Amino acid sequence: MLEVKTPEEVYRLIEKEFRPLDRKELVPLEHALGRVLAEDITASEYVPDFDRSTVDGYAVRASDTFGCSDAIPAILELGGEVRMGEDAQLTLKRGECAYVPTGGAIPEGGDCMVMIEYTEDYGDGTIGILKPGAPGMNLIFRGDDVYPGKVILRSGQVLRAQDIGALAAIGRTEVPVRPRLKVGVLSTGDELVPAAETPGPGQVRDVNMPMLTALLREVGAEPVQYGIITDDEALLHKAVRDALESCDAVILSGGSSAGVKDAACRIIESLGKLLLHGIAIKPGKPTILGRAENKPLIGLPGHPVAAYFVAKLFVLPLLARLEGRQVSDHPVCARLSESIGANHGRAQVSVCRLEKRGDQLTAVPIHSKSGLITQLAGADGYFMISRDCEGLPKDAAVDVFWK
Amino acid sequence: MLEVKTPEEVYRLIEKEFRPLDRKELVPLEHALGRVLAEDITASEYVPDFDRSTVDGYAVRASDTFGCSDAIPAILELGGEVRMGEDAQLTLKRGECAYVPTGGAIPEGGDCMVMIEYTEDYGDGTIGILKPGAPGMNLIFRGDDVYPGKVILRSGQVLRAQDIGALAAIGRTEVPVRPRLKVGVLSTGDELVPAAETPGPGQVRDVNMPMLTALLREVGAEPVQYGIITDDEALLHKAVRDALESCDAVILSGGSSAGVKDAACRIIESLGKLLLHGIAIKPGKPTILGRAENKPLIGLPGHPVAAYFVAKLFVLPLLARLEGRQVSDHPVCARLSESIGANHGRAQVSVCRLEKRGDQLTAVPIHSKSGLITQLAGADGYFMISRDCEGLPKDAAVDVFWK
Repeated sequence: MLEVKTPEEVYRLIEKEFRPLDRKELVPLEHALGRVLAEDITASEYVPDFDRSTVDGYAVRASDTFGCSDAIPAILELGGEVRMGEDAQLTLKRGECAYVPTGGAIPEGGDCMVMIEYTEDYGDGTIGILKPGAPGMNLIFRGDDVYPGKVILRSGQVLRAQDIGALAAIGRTEVPVRPRLKVGVLSTGDELVPAAETPGPGQVRDVNMPMLTALLREVGAEPVQYGIITDDEALLHKAVRDALESCDAVILSGGSSAGVKDAACRIIESLGKLLLHGIAIKPGKPTILGRAENKPLIGLPGHPVAAYFVAKLFVLPLLARLEGRQVSDHPVCARLSESIGANHGRAQVSVCRLEKRGDQLTAVPIHSKSGLITQLAGADGYFMISRDCEGLPKDAAVDVFWK
Repeated sequence: MLEVKTPEEVYRLIEKEFRPLDRKELVPLEHALGRVLAEDITASEYVPDFDRSTVDGYAVRASDTFGCSDAIPAILELGGEVRMGEDAQLTLKRGECAYVPTGGAIPEGGDCMVMIEYTEDYGDGTIGILKPGAPGMNLIFRGDDVYPGKVILRSGQVLRAQDIGALAAIGRTEVPVRPRLKVGVLSTGDELVPAAETPGPGQVRDVNMPMLTALLREVGAEPVQYGIITDDEALLHKAVRDALESCDAVILSGGSSAGVKDAACRIIESLGKLLLHGIAIKPGKPTILGRAENKPLIGLPGHPVAAYFVAKLFVLPLLARLEGRQVSDHPVCARLSESIGANHGRAQVSVCRLEKRGDQLTAVPIHSKSGLITQLAGADGYFMISRDCEGLPKDAAVDVFWK
């Protein structure tokens, strides 16, 4: 029998036992949102490819404007006008200026833009400059944003809207990403009926299947549902083998009775290696993890709240490991609205609502018996109480994860 | 000409000028993740519908176990065994107990579960109880999780995995949600070419279209792309009217030159009412907002970074308003790695990386010229410097929004 592990030991175990899958596929930029980059993205060109104005006004040689003022404008010849989306098509000589709109190209010879507000058009082909400029003012130089060889995005990043924008800027309209992880999901338990059915005596609806498939979709994985398997070791064995064959990982939930857990352990041991039997966390102790056919096989508790937190805290990081996905999660700091107890030698997950009280973000613990899924529906987030802590007083600072 | 408004004034304007659209549609639970609930969800039954054990062990009358101990066990008759997913099918008489697995139904007469660890099976039809129980111990009473009339979820909530679980628990496999908002997106500017094309002299790729459509998808809206419109008022007028006809809102970006902005204003005024011309924020000042045919029409700056932040800070809240969507965003508190300046009379958005330095979360400002989209791709989040602040010193606490 394996020992119960602390959360930190579980994270080290995941790191040690599983490696990122070396796979990639190309998707159109249009479909790349939320996907995991499979390689570093390096620019091969300049953006912009020309010196570009950031204001409406006149391109000048800055030295022609030194010392000018409202009282003594610098008078420059209007050498021409640059049109949007076209080459500047002119060269500024000493004493000349050219009109350039925001985003337009700076003519050769120009090194500064004077905003139109600080100029006067005398209507005779000359422009008065009322404020001196400095080289580089109000313009973006060629390659200021991007130059060949610049790394724009790193492998493992989950693509956000702004990243899609950066890819568009350099013309990467096909993006190398990780294929979506296929994750098989099985529910076990003679007491379970599908959510669409009305439970008979002694029965309850299967909450974990719809919840876990939704959680997998939230992180961009592709859940494959294998339905509810009754507490029969042969059936379970067959279903797990089927799932392992066509998926990258398999999650089994339920089987909270000792018999089914033991069956799941035997199945893992017959197909591969049992790595973990029990996590020192509440809720979520009866968790198993194994590797079969080089794929992770996870047995979650049957209680929906426990299944949710074990999936969130351990299964999602495991899937991120398989994808080489960068994950970062920043908690918000809140003050406890009331004292809270914990003294069972296990790390405790406590769910809470977040309320703004004056300037202070307050965490209001939600008290509930284990396994009550609707408490989670009313919660904004959760915080952890470490195993060596006997509880927290009112007003204690807690780090609340809330997504 | 309308006055430039502060961000707070813009939020009040949005609240005042736009109302939630009273629409709903039913979607299968399987497709409800990320959708906005269109009504409160109230339970109509008990979950669980029976008293349910949370442990493997023996159901007893607690009073039969009072005073027992390891040394002097309470000896109870084994009245039977409850099977998972079935009615208890027996009634506990005084002095009797029944085996019940985790999740099984408590037999009538039982009011307490004793964990199997604290019992001894004598093999002669009697069970020794080594630890006294108390009524209600180790069980969930009928309706502890849900009872008829209990509000499970509130209208306006964006459904997360745990909410999908709660809906499954009460058998709501069809969910009333807001139809996805259709949002028309247009880019304007003679200098723009589609991201897939190579820009010619004076041209740049259109970053805003792919970025804004991705941002809209991130919040569950359905973008409708109307392509790049050249700087021609008649063409723009037609494109905006087409978009208004089939969409719930229209976003126009680009047209950073004064002429196009004026054209956009004239179009809004000819079709409805101009509400806003300019926001006192950097980047993002040249923003317009109007209402045409009772729909919002937004003109964003052409610079991608400015367009991104105005969309994020103002357009997404406006869309949330139309959907009656609850939004909450909690920043994380970080310390500035260096001093940062700001003294232009406008609220300033500063982008940063987040780094863990020791126990301290540190915000490292990313310096860049306006309009450089790749700085955003390297950023983890942003913080705001208010308009009356002339900058922040090193180690100042900043609230970083990072999603």
